[in-house]
Amino acid sequence: MTEINAGNLEDFIRGTALLGTGGGGDPYIGRLMLQQELETCGSIRLLDPDELTEDHFGITLACMGAPTAFVEKLPNATGMIASMQRAEKEIGRKFNCIIPLEAGGINATIPLVVAARLGLPVVDGDGMGRAFPEFQMTTFNIYGADVNPFVMSDDFGNTVLLNTDAAIRTERYGRPVCVQMGGIAQCASYPMTGPVMRETCVPRTVSLAIEIGAALREARSAGTEDICDALVHYFRNSNPPRFASVLFDGKVQDVLRETTAGFAVGKARIAALQNPSVEMLITFQNEFSQATIDGKTLAIVPDLITILDRETGEPITTENLGYGQRVKVVAIAATPNMRSEEALSFIGPRAFGIDEDFQKLEALAWR
Amino acid sequence: MTEINAGNLEDFIRGTALLGTGGGGDPYIGRLMLQQELETCGSIRLLDPDELTEDHFGITLACMGAPTAFVEKLPNATGMIASMQRAEKEIGRKFNCIIPLEAGGINATIPLVVAARLGLPVVDGDGMGRAFPEFQMTTFNIYGADVNPFVMSDDFGNTVLLNTDAAIRTERYGRPVCVQMGGIAQCASYPMTGPVMRETCVPRTVSLAIEIGAALREARSAGTEDICDALVHYFRNSNPPRFASVLFDGKVQDVLRETTAGFAVGKARIAALQNPSVEMLITFQNEFSQATIDGKTLAIVPDLITILDRETGEPITTENLGYGQRVKVVAIAATPNMRSEEALSFIGPRAFGIDEDFQKLEALAWR
Repeated sequence: MTEINAGNLEDFIRGTALLGTGGGGDPYIGRLMLQQELETCGSIRLLDPDELTEDHFGITLACMGAPTAFVEKLPNATGMIASMQRAEKEIGRKFNCIIPLEAGGINATIPLVVAARLGLPVVDGDGMGRAFPEFQMTTFNIYGADVNPFVMSDDFGNTVLLNTDAAIRTERYGRPVCVQMGGIAQCASYPMTGPVMRETCVPRTVSLAIEIGAALREARSAGTEDICDALVHYFRNSNPPRFASVLFDGKVQDVLRETTAGFAVGKARIAALQNPSVEMLITFQNEFSQATIDGKTLAIVPDLITILDRETGEPITTENLGYGQRVKVVAIAATPNMRSEEALSFIGPRAFGIDEDFQKLEALAWR
Repeated sequence: MTEINAGNLEDFIRGTALLGTGGGGDPYIGRLMLQQELETCGSIRLLDPDELTEDHFGITLACMGAPTAFVEKLPNATGMIASMQRAEKEIGRKFNCIIPLEAGGINATIPLVVAARLGLPVVDGDGMGRAFPEFQMTTFNIYGADVNPFVMSDDFGNTVLLNTDAAIRTERYGRPVCVQMGGIAQCASYPMTGPVMRETCVPRTVSLAIEIGAALREARSAGTEDICDALVHYFRNSNPPRFASVLFDGKVQDVLRETTAGFAVGKARIAALQNPSVEMLITFQNEFSQATIDGKTLAIVPDLITILDRETGEPITTENLGYGQRVKVVAIAATPNMRSEEALSFIGPRAFGIDEDFQKLEALAWR
């Protein structure tokens, strides 16, 4: 893929909703923002990671906060640009491209919105290969990129600039500021040269989102009976292939959701359509982190757990999850650089407070 | 007064303990730190506010946090210097003097410790004329000085730099960071030129602390029976005179104290020695904010409320307050620039959540 335009916008947005794995906010908001920018600029150029050189200097732009807050507080492109310019002033060098922090949710769209407004290209890759709740949970951090300077902006032009010895400390110091900023902060972080971006990112995840969206759209318009099966088929036949599996087919029984300390945390119970006495429990911290049945894990972070409408294949975010929805749970294997030993110490189960070792989806899934 | 040296150190420290009005941490820690610096440098030059010119460029250095945390976490001069140098880098100008943020507690001593180490003079004045719990509660802010840039340092060299539209927002955004930094943060704020310092400070409060300490010491060595009366006498005869009064003579019955959200908050009950059925209630947020008997206010912020050992006249901080102590409660009128209408909106009762108008001590006190 070489650009984002009006032709692939919808596919892209639907793909980011899936890669948001329940977090990252309602994709509808991001779609409207990006649509408006594309009407002015026409298209946004994507840079393949292999194209990146020493002359490229990029930064991530992402909202920190609980996705539930997006319901009443829109992400703010002006605040993003303020954070970016504050980082430029601190470093003394201008950015000539933007790289997404996350491949999922609104944070996958925000970099494109800002890039459109500033006329900059966007790197086709990101630091998570999905969405994660915290700023140290990135392949950038895992593979040695520096999070500093980390700039946060609120909606009134106020900025907070952090310089720390570790991305996890940035997260700890920044999170309560985001709460004070109203639950959402516009953040610029991980300034990187081309080679650093190339070596530390999860590559081609913007393209991936477009392709996922296209697979869902094509299955729907072809009248495919089981859209989730079509999604699994897409992943298993992608290049390189990725294991994916429909874990569960059921009805949402109950959702316990709390917006606390800058996160949306909770759990959802889903009863099997065939046999309501069988229940799947899915826990989340912004994103879905673990799926279990009777205490047995079927999928766990960093592998991707998604919940889709069983008829339309539309991904459902945690804040839109509710009683009575008929859903399928689809899990997708994380990329190899998200599953390495270094990576698991930052994005494995224990990083989410789950006292369990990571096990690959392909070893856990029952079909 | 023209300098702080080994000769007036003890007086100064005792005076800052009184001006700490219960907050600001145990003065013993500050004394040890300053004593050590004076052994090396001999003395620290004081700048009278009237000496200040456009060539002077000063900044405040103060710990943010709950004074209770000082019990296990010492203030850190290295962290203060780091914050100061970060502010210099941001502004692009070196500071040639330091001005205290507070006249009371450890934060009255910290600027002298750093000044000694860097060989800089200290302005004889401050932004509070006592101690207050929050960073917007300063005459600097009230009379138009800019709090920005506001720099916070932890003990590991990590910095957080805020630029905001109001000092109260700086306080709201900075406070939870201080909690994450371990309850104490080393802060540099309010960079000011000479004229701004002169026009916005409470003048000659370093000298005041020394004089208060001397008055207490002299009364003690002269065998004065009632040291608190001697203190009241000092204030009533100072130049300009300030109203002061012994409000209560009693025994501490109970102290409810909580370290929460970066503050030490609570209340103390004191029973009258003469008639234990009469009780005074003193509330505090780091510092004592209100003294009442049967719901009737006898003294209220910004006027100074202090609790002293009834025999030695030693000021007692909230974290050292405990059952059975025989104490006197002494209140002292705030300076006129702390009692103006502009000032009361920042440091009056309502700024402390007390739903009451400010009334002058001299109108409230019974003798």
